[in-house]
Amino acid sequence: MDNEMQQRVARSFDAQGLMATLGAKLLHVDDGEVQIELPYAAHLTQQHGYLHAGAVSSILDSACGYAALTRAPAGSDVVTAEFKINLMRPAIGERFIAIGKVQNAGRMLTVTNGEVRAFSAGADAYKVVALMQATIVSVVR
Amino acid sequence: MDNEMQQRVARSFDAQGLMATLGAKLLHVDDGEVQIELPYAAHLTQQHGYLHAGAVSSILDSACGYAALTRAPAGSDVVTAEFKINLMRPAIGERFIAIGKVQNAGRMLTVTNGEVRAFSAGADAYKVVALMQATIVSVVR
Amino acid sequence: MDNEMQQRVARSFDAQGLMATLGAKLLHVDDGEVQIELPYAAHLTQQHGYLHAGAVSSILDSACGYAALTRAPAGSDVVTAEFKINLMRPAIGERFIAIGKVQNAGRMLTVTNGEVRAFSAGADAYKVVALMQATIVSVVR
Amino acid sequence: MDNEMQQRVARSFDAQGLMATLGAKLLHVDDGEVQIELPYAAHLTQQHGYLHAGAVSSILDSACGYAALTRAPAGSDVVTAEFKINLMRPAIGERFIAIGKVQNAGRMLTVTNGEVRAFSAGADAYKVVALMQATIVSVVR
Repeated sequence: MDNEMQQRVARSFDAQGLMATLGAKLLHVDDGEVQIELPYAAHLTQQHGYLHAGAVSSILDSACGYAALTRAPAGSDVVTAEFKINLMRPAIGERFIAIGKVQNAGRMLTVTNGEVRAFSAGADAYKVVALMQATIVSVVR
Repeated sequence: MDNEMQQRVARSFDAQGLMATLGAKLLHVDDGEVQIELPYAAHLTQQHGYLHAGAVSSILDSACGYAALTRAPAGSDVVTAEFKINLMRPAIGERFIAIGKVQNAGRMLTVTNGEVRAFSAGADAYKVVALMQATIVSVVR
Repeated sequence: MDNEMQQRVARSFDAQGLMATLGAKLLHVDDGEVQIELPYAAHLTQQHGYLHAGAVSSILDSACGYAALTRAPAGSDVVTAEFKINLMRPAIGERFIAIGKVQNAGRMLTVTNGEVRAFSAGADAYKVVALMQATIVSVVR
Repeated sequence: MDNEMQQRVARSFDAQGLMATLGAKLLHVDDGEVQIELPYAAHLTQQHGYLHAGAVSSILDSACGYAALTRAPAGSDVVTAEFKINLMRPAIGERFIAIGKVQNAGRMLTVTNGEVRAFSAGADAYKVVALMQATIVSVVR
């Protein structure tokens, strides 16, 4: 992570206790797009042993919020006003990548969407397990 | 937890790795309503030190899902098809209670809503920090 | 409608071409709550002859928006940033009442929820056919 | 519209009283994607004279539902279980095109998303004014 925008996202990500607790890593930061990776682990499961919807939502909400942050005015911060997520199939996989993308960056509100991809062991192919549409608000720090 | 419905919810809750990781406890199970409690902790934070939206969503999604489970046919299980959450204010507090309630239980789909209440240290008063509307699907095990 | 708040809502409602097209009437305006009534009519149907989800959404979105307007600062207007609606059963009835209520009025964003009730001919009882959770933004005119 | 799938969508569309009331036309039906066109008209407005969010939602909900119908088993029908829509900017334009696309077609639930594009008079360029994420349920007739 070498430019100012990437450092800004990385600093905020590193300050999130929950991301460390989950074991999530910041994978990619680009203008209007952020990717977060989460390896499967037993401490993240729902009752059938799959990744809990809450863990899926947590990394995808963060990816959407940080995508919005790459477009926010300097000196401002972002918070999630609301999101909606469809959990389309059981989150089964060895690792998961959440991708958040800005769809429209307004002065006050930024609309993003994103998906979580599940990768099986040793496979390049993936299945999309969740879709999100989120509204992020820019706030002056 | 002494009746069959409560035991059913408690067994499933105890099988969720994520709830233990967060430190969440099953507080109350009634017909069509479930409450989950989460004490504030540093391993659950977003970048400003407040409770992360992902942790808020995780306990509220679980509360809504388990509320639906109290109305699901015997022998069936529930999974969240989708939810929408509004994060109305920073989740600041000493402990949080997520309350999920069934609004309409259909044959296939159950619609629930819920809220997360934030309690400050030593206070009985609370602030509602999040509202959810969720669709839960019943599946035969 | 006799006080300033009610007149403000009524003036805006009367300026909405779509409400007249649907045949909707402003039924009730109170602090933080607005009700809109829509009689069933053949020009509002979906393919099975029931009230179209679009008509259900239109009156409920307006009820939520106007509920927010009752709490907006003088001289400001409101627009819907986003909403989520669950259509829980077919919208069958002789008339429908949409009820929007403010849940949290922030400086910039107001969170509302609401429901649409379906009444059969001659009946006082109703069925809730839809639930909404909406985010309304205040804008200076 | 010449093949069976297109005829099936067209028959259902033509049976929707609301689509005729709005002045909407079925523009395009493909496997997993449906487009609906709506010319601007004064009977469709909100209080500032722009296209009402209810009209935007109505055509986009229909486009998403019919996109799901192109993937539904023969002999089944579709109904919208729920949708979420972001209204990203005022719906200003001479005509609007709603595009619904299937993202995941399950046995029971189909997840779609879509957008509404606003075209100004004489222009080929457009602005995306709304984004939707919807859950459609297949029902046996």
